[in-house]
Amino acid sequence: MEQQKKLEVLRHSAAHLLAHAVLELFPDTLLTIGPATEEGFFYDALLSRSLKEEDLPTIEKRMQELSLKNFPIEHRQISKQEAREIFKDNPFKLELIEGIPGETVGLSSQDGFRDLCRGGHEASTGDIKYFKLLGLSGSYWRANRENQPLQRIHGTAFFTSQDLVDFETRREEAQLYDHRRLGRQLEYFSFEEEAVGFPFFFPKGKAVLNVLVSYMRKLYAEYDYQEVETPMILSDELWKRSGHYAHYKDNMYFTTVDEQSYAIKPMNCPGSILIYKHRPRSYRELPLKLAEFGHVHRHELSGVLHGLLRVRAFTQDDAHIYCTVDQVEEEVRTILNIAFRMLHKCEFASVDLALATKPAKSMGSDELWDKATNSLKAVLEGYGKPYVLKEGEGAFYGPKIEIKIKDAMNREWQCGTVQIDFFQSDNFDLHYISTSGTRERPVIIHQALYGSLERFFAILLEHFKGNLPFWLAPVQIMVLTITDAQKQYAQEVYSALKKHGLRVNLDRSSDQISSKIKAAQLEKVPWMIVIGQKEVDAGTVSVRYADGKQMLGVALEKVLSMADELNR
Amino acid sequence: MEQQKKLEVLRHSAAHLLAHAVLELFPDTLLTIGPATEEGFFYDALLSRSLKEEDLPTIEKRMQELSLKNFPIEHRQISKQEAREIFKDNPFKLELIEGIPGETVGLSSQDGFRDLCRGGHEASTGDIKYFKLLGLSGSYWRANRENQPLQRIHGTAFFTSQDLVDFETRREEAQLYDHRRLGRQLEYFSFEEEAVGFPFFFPKGKAVLNVLVSYMRKLYAEYDYQEVETPMILSDELWKRSGHYAHYKDNMYFTTVDEQSYAIKPMNCPGSILIYKHRPRSYRELPLKLAEFGHVHRHELSGVLHGLLRVRAFTQDDAHIYCTVDQVEEEVRTILNIAFRMLHKCEFASVDLALATKPAKSMGSDELWDKATNSLKAVLEGYGKPYVLKEGEGAFYGPKIEIKIKDAMNREWQCGTVQIDFFQSDNFDLHYISTSGTRERPVIIHQALYGSLERFFAILLEHFKGNLPFWLAPVQIMVLTITDAQKQYAQEVYSALKKHGLRVNLDRSSDQISSKIKAAQLEKVPWMIVIGQKEVDAGTVSVRYADGKQMLGVALEKVLSMADELNR
Repeated sequence: MEQQKKLEVLRHSAAHLLAHAVLELFPDTLLTIGPATEEGFFYDALLSRSLKEEDLPTIEKRMQELSLKNFPIEHRQISKQEAREIFKDNPFKLELIEGIPGETVGLSSQDGFRDLCRGGHEASTGDIKYFKLLGLSGSYWRANRENQPLQRIHGTAFFTSQDLVDFETRREEAQLYDHRRLGRQLEYFSFEEEAVGFPFFFPKGKAVLNVLVSYMRKLYAEYDYQEVETPMILSDELWKRSGHYAHYKDNMYFTTVDEQSYAIKPMNCPGSILIYKHRPRSYRELPLKLAEFGHVHRHELSGVLHGLLRVRAFTQDDAHIYCTVDQVEEEVRTILNIAFRMLHKCEFASVDLALATKPAKSMGSDELWDKATNSLKAVLEGYGKPYVLKEGEGAFYGPKIEIKIKDAMNREWQCGTVQIDFFQSDNFDLHYISTSGTRERPVIIHQALYGSLERFFAILLEHFKGNLPFWLAPVQIMVLTITDAQKQYAQEVYSALKKHGLRVNLDRSSDQISSKIKAAQLEKVPWMIVIGQKEVDAGTVSVRYADGKQMLGVALEKVLSMADELNR
Repeated sequence: MEQQKKLEVLRHSAAHLLAHAVLELFPDTLLTIGPATEEGFFYDALLSRSLKEEDLPTIEKRMQELSLKNFPIEHRQISKQEAREIFKDNPFKLELIEGIPGETVGLSSQDGFRDLCRGGHEASTGDIKYFKLLGLSGSYWRANRENQPLQRIHGTAFFTSQDLVDFETRREEAQLYDHRRLGRQLEYFSFEEEAVGFPFFFPKGKAVLNVLVSYMRKLYAEYDYQEVETPMILSDELWKRSGHYAHYKDNMYFTTVDEQSYAIKPMNCPGSILIYKHRPRSYRELPLKLAEFGHVHRHELSGVLHGLLRVRAFTQDDAHIYCTVDQVEEEVRTILNIAFRMLHKCEFASVDLALATKPAKSMGSDELWDKATNSLKAVLEGYGKPYVLKEGEGAFYGPKIEIKIKDAMNREWQCGTVQIDFFQSDNFDLHYISTSGTRERPVIIHQALYGSLERFFAILLEHFKGNLPFWLAPVQIMVLTITDAQKQYAQEVYSALKKHGLRVNLDRSSDQISSKIKAAQLEKVPWMIVIGQKEVDAGTVSVRYADGKQMLGVALEKVLSMADELNR
């Protein structure tokens, strides 16, 4: 934390250095604001001519010169009147001055350069040594698209040269394995202008989604979840009752049916609840675990859309468990078991758990909260893993477990949640008939483990750097022949693999075997089955793995059983 | 055909008989229209008091009396002026008179009863012997809900008593096996007031849909179809280009995204086309067969909604085949092969084929039409089955094959279509690079075999009278014990069946075995596995089929292989 704070000071100083350099190079620039960010810093400015990527080295060079000159950085409070005088030609700064409470404002200065600033700087420009400009983007004054468009210059800074090199490596890797790039290159999905923010899945991308669904279905069957399907559009009345209309309306899409307003569902809960509510329920039916691969639509501003990581429509692996408060512990234990099996299968080694507890404002009795929270704690402690306790950070309607994963590039993602819900059961007047014949409220547990299938797919693609493992790969096996003489046999092998239910392709070209291997590698197919005359004569095949290792002269039966093992 | 025409005359006469009886019983009734229908006849009328079901026997009795009196039925042309005088107290008839072209109108009379009528009657009321009133429903004058609400009295009539008895039997059967009734009773699906016309699938209903999808996916894999997924909502621009906006707008739902109008897709074609169009295509890729289980929304008036047979949202097993005109024949042959395999699997023994050919107004060259139509003919003739030629009844954009099935109650359904499309390829400027390097237009074949999964499910439910076959049943096997002493063994059997991927339940109650069997029968489970002490001792199971037949002392391995055989 301390380190992060220090980095912020450094980066904020670097933003000033950037502004200083820009003003020297382009004196009529109007500066606006330049904060530190999690990854570095930026400065938004209005320039008399649009900057291009080619300008960045020049600016960076000037920053280095200013750093070498080692100007002291001074900071003092001045009167607003003085500030207005200094920034009289910059309407943005003047507007900022008016927005600052009190009678004085902070001013930072280095050499001739002066900027409005709350303070928190390095001692001199020479302290800012290891920095890099990262790129340009568009922005708007005060992030409002109706205001003046500005140019944003991005950069980062570190305390050591090694940190900067590491950052650059990670950044290059992230760019190289960016799921949008991989998705395009491997023809997994696309976005088209006719549907901004709504993905199109090509055959290979859809194959991966189908595998994720099948795998979760297998787990659902094993743990007695039952799948349902509820409508995509439901009357506004329902969303008013569920509270989404009041709190989530701006993210919802609406349509009209029979002159009534209906919403395209942003969540699956209300539909699931209507199924529960369809007829009286008995304690014998609990826990009732209703799962839905629910396709939901949620509006996002076009500026924040980001490949499959942030879309406007996605499929959730959503489940709602209706149970008694006494059943919460066992159900949550089951959910975490499913989550860990799935995350293990997806090769996420690092999983962090957190428990968010009762906030100041909440509903439901203390007894209910204590019981449910203790159940969650008991489950988490049963795992013998540390978990973070987020006191008071639960939703007003119940405590929650968050499941965070770290990918191969050490980035953290929150995908899974287990949310206890005391509210909707009350709100929709759900009940069950207890053993003693009384009407009781069930608790609802909201479960989502992939979270969004689309987002999880993106994370998997980046995590595996495009090399999806055998069970998940859209094409699991490519059958190749060394010469055309083996084509007949290759066709038989291909048919047998396909009939077995494997996702297999046959390279029917007459290219050199080296080109065929190259093509399969580019397609990131995990197994190649290479067939030469030796294999035809022996009635076997050779398997070449993506990493280049080979198994020669294997019986086809053996290949099938190896594949079944991985697909299990 | 001749018979149908005669029935129409009889039923039209019966409608007059009904009106005659109603007017005698309720003299201030205002009659409107009373046509023959495919199933019988109806009369719409405005009565001073609402009729109830209990009134129907009285009306029917009066009709019988009027029939026995054997009044001659006379028909003559009268001047409009005379007609206006006769019907001066009935504004509906007066409006009808004004709408009839020419100077005269037809008048039918029997005893004192007179009605407007184009003609075509029995000779006397005594000819109308075998009739029945079927029920009441609401309607509107001229079927416009902004007009006067009316009551509709439904009935039917036949020439022989046997025909009427057969009709009643079929009708009772149809009511007994009405999919809405079965769906409710078996908890397969429901409709809720929060989503009028949009079905909710309960676990067992969703299980059936999933089986239908998996089965079609297996066929797709075998025949090299590739599954894709396209967005649910797409910009109006796309629907304008596709022509849906101009021709189908009234059936579409719209929403707003980023201040632009988007439509909730009523069809999957435009999305599929965008995938084809995403990058240049080569002849090597053709035929490119893109399939999508596309969830579409189409507005229907609330009055015509009918369980799952007519809904406002449904999933199509849609496929689009992009190919050369020379490939049409083989592709259509493949489609029919898939269709026949599926229909055979679903036990539809009677399948009728029709070919609809070039209409007067059409697009595309004669050569293209001839080639495609001849391809379809060649495929149909290759089947050695008769097919109906519907000359000139094709769509303007291409010829079509219709696949009609008859269910167990002898009702005909059209589910499958194979539509050749020369239009969208042109419209969206699709092309592929031919062997000689030129840019050519692909032909699109639209394929849907279930049609709507929801509707097909309803048809299957009625076809099988609720007794879905083993491969399709939501619960395939129920495990039962004769006494509690076998529970441990039953649990093992249950786990083994479940692990094998079968849809199996275990009756954990301590009820009498006869009650357990009864419960499984009510649930329409195809196989029961009954376990008594004998089975425990021998390490076997007994299988009891839905029809009561049994196989005693079977090894579990044998059960699994029998099940695999049926699930194949």
